[in-house]
Amino acid sequence: MTNNSFAMTLSEPSVQRKLGTICIFGTGDFGRSLGLRLLQAGYRVVFGSRNPRNSSLLPKGAEVLSHKEAAQAAQVIFVAVHRENYDFLCHIGGEALAGKVLVDVSNNLKRSQYPESNAEHLSKLVPAAHVVKAFNTVSAWALQSGGLDANRQVLVCGHNCEAKQMVKDIAQNLGFTALDKGSLQAAAELEDYPLQLFPMWRLPVALATGLIVVFFLYLLARDVIYAAVQDGKDISFRVMVSLPNKVFPIVSLIMLALCYLPGVIAGFLQLYNGTKYRRFPNWLDRWMLCRKQLGLLALALAFLHVLYTLIIPLRYYVRYRLSSWTVAQIKQNKTEPFDTTMAWRTDSYYAIGILGFGFYVLLGITSLPSVSNNVNWREFRFIQSKLGHLTLLLCTAHTFLYGWDKFLKPSYYKWYLPPGYMLSLIVPCVVLVLKFVLITPCVDRAITRIRQGWERKPAAYMGIYDDKGNQSLLL
Amino acid sequence: MTNNSFAMTLSEPSVQRKLGTICIFGTGDFGRSLGLRLLQAGYRVVFGSRNPRNSSLLPKGAEVLSHKEAAQAAQVIFVAVHRENYDFLCHIGGEALAGKVLVDVSNNLKRSQYPESNAEHLSKLVPAAHVVKAFNTVSAWALQSGGLDANRQVLVCGHNCEAKQMVKDIAQNLGFTALDKGSLQAAAELEDYPLQLFPMWRLPVALATGLIVVFFLYLLARDVIYAAVQDGKDISFRVMVSLPNKVFPIVSLIMLALCYLPGVIAGFLQLYNGTKYRRFPNWLDRWMLCRKQLGLLALALAFLHVLYTLIIPLRYYVRYRLSSWTVAQIKQNKTEPFDTTMAWRTDSYYAIGILGFGFYVLLGITSLPSVSNNVNWREFRFIQSKLGHLTLLLCTAHTFLYGWDKFLKPSYYKWYLPPGYMLSLIVPCVVLVLKFVLITPCVDRAITRIRQGWERKPAAYMGIYDDKGNQSLLL
Amino acid sequence: MTNNSFAMTLSEPSVQRKLGTICIFGTGDFGRSLGLRLLQAGYRVVFGSRNPRNSSLLPKGAEVLSHKEAAQAAQVIFVAVHRENYDFLCHIGGEALAGKVLVDVSNNLKRSQYPESNAEHLSKLVPAAHVVKAFNTVSAWALQSGGLDANRQVLVCGHNCEAKQMVKDIAQNLGFTALDKGSLQAAAELEDYPLQLFPMWRLPVALATGLIVVFFLYLLARDVIYAAVQDGKDISFRVMVSLPNKVFPIVSLIMLALCYLPGVIAGFLQLYNGTKYRRFPNWLDRWMLCRKQLGLLALALAFLHVLYTLIIPLRYYVRYRLSSWTVAQIKQNKTEPFDTTMAWRTDSYYAIGILGFGFYVLLGITSLPSVSNNVNWREFRFIQSKLGHLTLLLCTAHTFLYGWDKFLKPSYYKWYLPPGYMLSLIVPCVVLVLKFVLITPCVDRAITRIRQGWERKPAAYMGIYDDKGNQSLLL
Repeated sequence: MTNNSFAMTLSEPSVQRKLGTICIFGTGDFGRSLGLRLLQAGYRVVFGSRNPRNSSLLPKGAEVLSHKEAAQAAQVIFVAVHRENYDFLCHIGGEALAGKVLVDVSNNLKRSQYPESNAEHLSKLVPAAHVVKAFNTVSAWALQSGGLDANRQVLVCGHNCEAKQMVKDIAQNLGFTALDKGSLQAAAELEDYPLQLFPMWRLPVALATGLIVVFFLYLLARDVIYAAVQDGKDISFRVMVSLPNKVFPIVSLIMLALCYLPGVIAGFLQLYNGTKYRRFPNWLDRWMLCRKQLGLLALALAFLHVLYTLIIPLRYYVRYRLSSWTVAQIKQNKTEPFDTTMAWRTDSYYAIGILGFGFYVLLGITSLPSVSNNVNWREFRFIQSKLGHLTLLLCTAHTFLYGWDKFLKPSYYKWYLPPGYMLSLIVPCVVLVLKFVLITPCVDRAITRIRQGWERKPAAYMGIYDDKGNQSLLL
Repeated sequence: MTNNSFAMTLSEPSVQRKLGTICIFGTGDFGRSLGLRLLQAGYRVVFGSRNPRNSSLLPKGAEVLSHKEAAQAAQVIFVAVHRENYDFLCHIGGEALAGKVLVDVSNNLKRSQYPESNAEHLSKLVPAAHVVKAFNTVSAWALQSGGLDANRQVLVCGHNCEAKQMVKDIAQNLGFTALDKGSLQAAAELEDYPLQLFPMWRLPVALATGLIVVFFLYLLARDVIYAAVQDGKDISFRVMVSLPNKVFPIVSLIMLALCYLPGVIAGFLQLYNGTKYRRFPNWLDRWMLCRKQLGLLALALAFLHVLYTLIIPLRYYVRYRLSSWTVAQIKQNKTEPFDTTMAWRTDSYYAIGILGFGFYVLLGITSLPSVSNNVNWREFRFIQSKLGHLTLLLCTAHTFLYGWDKFLKPSYYKWYLPPGYMLSLIVPCVVLVLKFVLITPCVDRAITRIRQGWERKPAAYMGIYDDKGNQSLLL
Repeated sequence: MTNNSFAMTLSEPSVQRKLGTICIFGTGDFGRSLGLRLLQAGYRVVFGSRNPRNSSLLPKGAEVLSHKEAAQAAQVIFVAVHRENYDFLCHIGGEALAGKVLVDVSNNLKRSQYPESNAEHLSKLVPAAHVVKAFNTVSAWALQSGGLDANRQVLVCGHNCEAKQMVKDIAQNLGFTALDKGSLQAAAELEDYPLQLFPMWRLPVALATGLIVVFFLYLLARDVIYAAVQDGKDISFRVMVSLPNKVFPIVSLIMLALCYLPGVIAGFLQLYNGTKYRRFPNWLDRWMLCRKQLGLLALALAFLHVLYTLIIPLRYYVRYRLSSWTVAQIKQNKTEPFDTTMAWRTDSYYAIGILGFGFYVLLGITSLPSVSNNVNWREFRFIQSKLGHLTLLLCTAHTFLYGWDKFLKPSYYKWYLPPGYMLSLIVPCVVLVLKFVLITPCVDRAITRIRQGWERKPAAYMGIYDDKGNQSLLL
């Protein structure tokens, strides 16, 4: 529905429908873009200006009046000026704005720039008007280009329901979807919203990049440089497929484990504290908040690992080696017997890897907003905790089967460095062992009691609260 | 937006903003967790207690008053006590609660425990207050941990719009998204919601598991045990990859067909009844309701089948056999000629399988809630019916090409048991033949008329209604 | 939640709850289906009929009265008659309908059939009633079958908030989700909604189909027919896998480039015009509006290309050729040396292709409605513009590496026709070169200024406005 409402508006001569008058204060880029769009949708648009004669830039069809006249001509007034210039509204006179709907579309240059949101500031300046925060999450470019396939939501907040409804109707008529974000208190959040650039993804992406670089260099030294130095062999072509196909699964497994480690640590902390009402350390809070992002990056790396693995038989190097092997067998005139253990091991290795990846993908799908909004808390915990730990178990088993008995053979420790897969097993094994401890009946009973609100020593805990005060509470 | 509003709240000293006073009745786990969260968000929190002195467990910063005093201090009162204890509200006195917003956060231990929802019961006990059902779908743990990446929706219902708006604002301020579920009649549904654990998935999962077990044992007997008994060969390693890669596609195809079978049966039933206003049998209703789940499980199995197939060339067993074959050719000094029919057959088999899987994935994507909410009824039917049957046709053709002429060769009937793929073709073929009958012009015309409301013999049909009464109508 | 609310209603004897009286005007298919569903949900249903005696088709449990009596019995009246018959409402008399909620459920036979929407027409006929447009996007079949897994949204619009709330409550009680689309002005859009069948997808699908057919025929001639005519070799089996695996990536790359070409053209147009307030030509507007669909089709084709590529080692033809090559080597008793350049080239080719596909999939995931609604404008541009062009760059590099030095060898120009991959590189290279020009510092500075609202020659631009008038404005 949303997708083509705009397309229709484009092709139809929509000026025929007259929708009412809208006033815009401010003739900057946003004001002009909004004016154009409103005109096109069939509104009468009146710009308020200090100097109504000098407005050559405004779109034809829009009228230009003084601020006061413009305000009187419309019920809804868009305030498309910077917060620093809000004072001019005081000069218009309260009675001209009384009962009007003032739409604050302003944004700031950086997050939490002012202690009070622009919209609340505006509301105090003009208490007689109904201030609605809206359209600030829409860019001037999106207004002109019709939003295209981007986010077409207009986030709206304000105290007065009828005023909000008017603004929502305008958004609807311009082809946007209005989303009510509650009262004007939400304005601060709305004003910070357009400034962010994946804030929750920064730490996980940095971590993934760091791990990838470290393991790439490690394996480069162990595999390629070792071969060049010791055997004088040039196997540098391996940096394109073989090395990434070791680095990606290693980092993926570590990050999947890091996804479940904070939950396990939290469990032990609660056991140690004897209460769930004690706040976790800050680092643990932050870690827990980016688990979803950690998991999705791990899934992306696992996906690349799958693709890198599946193209192996297509590679020139692999085909050449297989053919050489056959040729060598014939020349030596011996037939290597079929090794059932080898068949079992490799098949198990692949089968468990595939099942692990299948659950991995399932976890990824259920983290899509529209899916996770359709499951209740109990279902979400079932998927993310039960299936999540099962996935970790399968992927760890997959890695163990890959290694098999390599860890016993000294030849695999080139320059005394263990193979990469061994390093990748440390964190997952720690998580699995700790989790296993947590789900043993006696520990599980204790933790369940704590999570239901039981506390070991309320008195001591109150003392801690006294030390740190209110802010130390876990929110 | 939702994702990081909480993160922001965590790091900022948010006590600076004072948001008003909230009263909480009940000092259990949920009450305390809610109190902590409200305090952190900047609310003043007043607990109502029978014995205000003895409340050592409450978070510092919260005040404790008698029930009556607490109620008078706030406009919004959270009732965080069990339904059995609602009577205490009658002792507070109606005038203290008159006009207040009572938020019922209670849940039951099992579905439909009481004939009347807790919130409606509360509304009858305190008719002077505005009862709003909310926050029951949020767990105490989610309140404390900030919801993390789980469902952050607070489902709200109630008769009074302003009361609902107040509760929605609170939810918004705590970092949740409020979703209006209508009037208080929806409370029963909301109270049952947190108790369910994938109710629609049980039957399809049980069916898939059953089919997988049956076919696994069948193929184990036919392939592995037969080889061990008759030829004394140990090919047990096949249980890891080869057998699953037969079982998964077989079960996937059967379940895809089971997805479309009820629609076809419904068509024939309507033709037979001569009306669409006759209710379907119960089993058919239930079957139709879990078609989406059947289809998604079938897709998951098809996905595993694809992965199991793609790793085939990587397997030790396959490489060994290919190499042996080449060696054998050389030793016998003969070159097998290139078989064009074989090339056609296998390539067609793969190509059709890939196209079928492509459409399969498309069907899966369109069943994501956010996608299916963006298509209208006509588009949904186009995808799920037209493309769905095309997918079934392609997958069935893929299986036929896989079999080719094997069904003619007695050697494939080990212990007189037909190969698994033959059994998997029965249901799809039935569905496709029946569907083909339904879309022949004359039958199609009859069924279209019936679906537009035409009835063959209204008199007889009224009689049936008289027999069974009102409940027998299809809703 | 939505999924099983209906299932519950089915199995429970829900007649026990009495929800109030609903009146339905019209005893056609929709009216009857709606009546059945309302009865089942627990409502009392009263049909309004001209001839109350002759209503044998109505579901048992429903009462039939004259229009006037029926209207007086209920607060909410569903008008389930065609627009042409709305006049009968005038005969009922205004006082019977005054203050009532009239729900317009009508649809038209084609888009924009009437200049005024049915609901607005109804509102003018009965000005004393509150008209709400709703349920028109739900089919009679969906009403009966409970919506199953289709879109369960009931889109609601109307001027009166309380009237809308009543209709939303009814939708909720019937197991649907109500979605507020604003005031009655949105009715025209809602009435057109059920008639559309993927309007935005037509052009991209037609384009993809056309390109696939053209390239298939081109490659058929170049590869298969050439081999048959010149060498007398039958390699017709290639049409199943080899040819599609050339056609799909070629068309996918061209369509991905076509996705980013309009943005680049728009940039140059803005540079040329010296303003962003000049409207783009119509064809460019349309093109920009279907970029998302172009990109998703390109992704689907890339997905098929990946699957077709991954099954290559499974193909009989490939295995036969590999084996023949080994046999030939042995017979000639020479060993081909390992070619490191070849290893580098093919590995790079695969690695870059995989990374490109990975970003491709990421772009696809972020275009899911639920994901794109959770990113702000800045994040959306980062993904779609930065990552999009990176994807195009990787996929183009993948194709160049595939070609390598083939373009130098005359033997590849069969019948003087260049290989398909060369043709596929034209559009991507144009886009990348133009984009590269746009991001050079000096050009980038100019375009950024224009996009922030700067204009080169406002006077001339106003003249253009005068020529074309208001409609020529870019909305």
